[in-house]
Amino acid sequence: MIGIDWGTTSLRAYRLDEAGAALEQRESAQGILSVPGGGFAAVLEAEIGPWLDAGERLVLLCGMIGSRQGWREAPYLPCPAGPAEIAAAMVPLPLPGAARCLLVPGLLTRGPEGVPDVMRGEETKLIGLLAELGDGAATLCLPGTHSKWARLEGGRIAGFATRMTGETRAVLLGHSILGRLSAPAAQGAGDEAFRRGLRRSREGGGLLHHLFGTRALGLMGELAAEETDDYLSGLLIGHEVRAAVEDGTAAGTVHLAGSDTLCRLYALAFAEYGVAHRRHDPDIAARGLALLGRTIA
Amino acid sequence: MIGIDWGTTSLRAYRLDEAGAALEQRESAQGILSVPGGGFAAVLEAEIGPWLDAGERLVLLCGMIGSRQGWREAPYLPCPAGPAEIAAAMVPLPLPGAARCLLVPGLLTRGPEGVPDVMRGEETKLIGLLAELGDGAATLCLPGTHSKWARLEGGRIAGFATRMTGETRAVLLGHSILGRLSAPAAQGAGDEAFRRGLRRSREGGGLLHHLFGTRALGLMGELAAEETDDYLSGLLIGHEVRAAVEDGTAAGTVHLAGSDTLCRLYALAFAEYGVAHRRHDPDIAARGLALLGRTIA
Repeated sequence: MIGIDWGTTSLRAYRLDEAGAALEQRESAQGILSVPGGGFAAVLEAEIGPWLDAGERLVLLCGMIGSRQGWREAPYLPCPAGPAEIAAAMVPLPLPGAARCLLVPGLLTRGPEGVPDVMRGEETKLIGLLAELGDGAATLCLPGTHSKWARLEGGRIAGFATRMTGETRAVLLGHSILGRLSAPAAQGAGDEAFRRGLRRSREGGGLLHHLFGTRALGLMGELAAEETDDYLSGLLIGHEVRAAVEDGTAAGTVHLAGSDTLCRLYALAFAEYGVAHRRHDPDIAARGLALLGRTIA
Repeated sequence: MIGIDWGTTSLRAYRLDEAGAALEQRESAQGILSVPGGGFAAVLEAEIGPWLDAGERLVLLCGMIGSRQGWREAPYLPCPAGPAEIAAAMVPLPLPGAARCLLVPGLLTRGPEGVPDVMRGEETKLIGLLAELGDGAATLCLPGTHSKWARLEGGRIAGFATRMTGETRAVLLGHSILGRLSAPAAQGAGDEAFRRGLRRSREGGGLLHHLFGTRALGLMGELAAEETDDYLSGLLIGHEVRAAVEDGTAAGTVHLAGSDTLCRLYALAFAEYGVAHRRHDPDIAARGLALLGRTIA
């Protein structure tokens, strides 16, 4: 089968065997925002035409390609949802030739007070982790622009909470007074500043106060311009983990999957907050697509 | 005497009598960012020349005009600081003619963990409130881009905490995914959305989770585009007040001074959190300048 992870800024295509191993793999910068309206089928055929010609009969697509801004909107499926529910809610797409082409739906959950939360693309990664972790209860964290904290129970995604950590960092650095204080740092040079931000997140006064403290530290010469970005990351990731600890989400071992850079930072944050964690392969979308493919086959 | 409140985007000039009442008043959009380097004296003389010619002998300037980006930097004075300490730390400026011209310093404080916090301009407003409230202990809140929560004790500013509420709202609306969901609302139409954001701020999950909820509510059709801005304001002002309640700052009556628009919103937030408050005249900078003028005279 063929699995496609098609997001806002990139497209990843996998040719997968029965067990979910990638036989071939392609990556392109043609995220949905760079494809003109109506051009999705052409982009897809250019990417996977040879695999279709070689006889592949199933194409699954996940990610923002199934959003209002994508090819077609696949409605959000309510949690709890496992591979069976997700497979049943897939939306067919017209593709010339003999292959079946299906959109994986995003997920919808509601917090204890009824406020909705959504994901699109991450559900497939969570299914990939589920393939690894089995049917037991587990807490999963996928860090990023919009970090996802999910709960697996009985082989399904029971619910989740999103924290807007990465995007908040980006807009504050790019557009607030904090960015004007910041200078680029050498790679990895800022671990001590990151840890300082983490420690600060454990103290009182709230996130909005801690943010301004970044500026005051800079003005007083107690935080270098090169440290601002890392200190701010420590503050925000620290507040993300703090909230998960306070609401009980991070009570057991947290299963973490993401880029090396982010996982290293989250590992420091988990250590600061005394949270046990286990890292997983970042390339779990392919495994999730394979499991979903086996479910509908 | 003459008092000048010279900020980043505006200049307010007051001709004040002995009691601190404004005899004449001028306002201009020539904030420090719009004045070319070296041009501050010329702008000031154009604004207040006639008052100097009429015999005024003392000019006090407060605000960002005393920052690194201003006319001259007036170093931050550590708290606790009252009128006497502030008057003694003023920085003289050269102005042609017989009048004395002095810069009011900003203030520096340190939280319980030693993290610095700073203000510049607001110290003069706090002194204006002190003129009204006397020597007792009091908690003051000046809402805004960088909201200031200060403690008066024994006729001095004992300490303060800044919360970056207004700026965080502005950058999220202007540059994050939340802004893309937002549409302008009719004036005052959004009180119910604002209150909904306030109520949400009292629940669990943390600010970073609540922020993303704004988007999920919009996607699910449970928050109108015209309500996004007000809901987000409710969330952020709610988290500001929540943090002040949690760290004990908002234990007694909070004395509030600011624009009508902001004070109305903060009054709703205080009501939601069960915090007593008292509103004061927003034009307290002139009173603060007058009290400082009497102190050095």
